[in-house]
Amino acid sequence: MISKVLVRLKEDVLDPAGRALTEQLNHLGFNEVKSAMVGKYIELNMDTGDREKQKERVQEMCHRLLANSLIEDYEIIHEVIEKKP
Amino acid sequence: MISKVLVRLKEDVLDPAGRALTEQLNHLGFNEVKSAMVGKYIELNMDTGDREKQKERVQEMCHRLLANSLIEDYEIIHEVIEKKP
Repeated sequence: MISKVLVRLKEDVLDPAGRALTEQLNHLGFNEVKSAMVGKYIELNMDTGDREKQKERVQEMCHRLLANSLIEDYEIIHEVIEKKP
Repeated sequence: MISKVLVRLKEDVLDPAGRALTEQLNHLGFNEVKSAMVGKYIELNMDTGDREKQKERVQEMCHRLLANSLIEDYEIIHEVIEKKP
């Protein structure tokens, strides 16, 4: 089962990459972009049969390694990949 | 309206960051992680009234700036933020 983790900076944390991206997009003519934020996207291919157990483990990974809870928030998306016949 | 863009390396592209993350997670005891991939997560706060128009514009941004189509795939998630009263 694949788990996707989205890690983003908290709202009040300075985001120079996001600011640079906003300016670049505006410069390219995408003036409707008011702000952009650049974070991390992590895909985990895991070998657990148990959906609930996997959710718990991914939470633990976020807490211990994937996200810095002082400055970052995270969101987890769980996806079931069906086996091809 | 917020649009979220997930940018990931194509399956056959070498991903040293993902490999290092897999090793690190295994080392921490998360042995059920078979592989990990590290990509970019971009959040765009946009000022378009029109949902369809926004989808089109975000596609264009991905094509022109956000993703390198030679080595990366992308996925777009559109989200409507309801205005608070």
